[in-house]
Amino acid sequence: MVKQALYLENLKVGDTFISETYQLSADKIKSFAREFDPQVFHCDENLAEDTFFKGLAASGWHTAAITMKLVTESLPFAHGIIGAGGEITWPQPTRSNDVLYVKSTIKEIKPSKSKPNQALVIVECETLNQRDEVCQILTAKLLSFKKD
Amino acid sequence: MVKQALYLENLKVGDTFISETYQLSADKIKSFAREFDPQVFHCDENLAEDTFFKGLAASGWHTAAITMKLVTESLPFAHGIIGAGGEITWPQPTRSNDVLYVKSTIKEIKPSKSKPNQALVIVECETLNQRDEVCQILTAKLLSFKKD
Repeated sequence: MVKQALYLENLKVGDTFISETYQLSADKIKSFAREFDPQVFHCDENLAEDTFFKGLAASGWHTAAITMKLVTESLPFAHGIIGAGGEITWPQPTRSNDVLYVKSTIKEIKPSKSKPNQALVIVECETLNQRDEVCQILTAKLLSFKKD
Repeated sequence: MVKQALYLENLKVGDTFISETYQLSADKIKSFAREFDPQVFHCDENLAEDTFFKGLAASGWHTAAITMKLVTESLPFAHGIIGAGGEITWPQPTRSNDVLYVKSTIKEIKPSKSKPNQALVIVECETLNQRDEVCQILTAKLLSFKKD
């Protein structure tokens, strides 16, 4: 589905965007972890049982990367999703059979003082699983531009 | 190299840990982006020239994932690197020929009130390139445990 590109003048506080879903798997969790977060609770189901996570859990950075994929598909900012940074928390682990989706809500729009054509848009992206439990909250600072 | 596992009683504010290096490439940037952040400035050198980034740039979440790999190898917390969350900023883009490393500094140690055996350790992880320019600052909240 082609979504209409959203410029700064199209955005308002409270606007909400719901993504499609993403099916995780143990193989995906272990493949990401072997490359970027090779810790036992992300790489081995059996050994993970005796850890803090009490079973295989996705790397938080894997959850963040999946979230980004879902956000790029559901939040059609003109010029793309360009983040200056943000705050991230993982209230509970993401598991191998989880089906994730992201709910993004515009919380604040801060016009740039030096660049009248752009603003910093504060977007809260909640990553939820199939039971609507929150696995990640990302409060992101995104750049948005006026239409030329 | 096997590093000695660090328990809570081994940590103090100001301790610093320097990682090995990680060589990026255009192929790595595009491969990560196709899976998790399929935007033109992360996927196509030529088209990226006309974007905000003025050339191919790594997804911020790719920089974050590489940072995690380097931190798991350089910060030998007993029981692993378990993050509750943190703040992340990307002061400048990460590029295809960058060689990254991470400098982690313990900024604060907050003993848990309810669990006397553990603490939240605030660690600032700076991700630097071959010119010592800061590409990412992650202020992470990590769990640390006393030795049983």
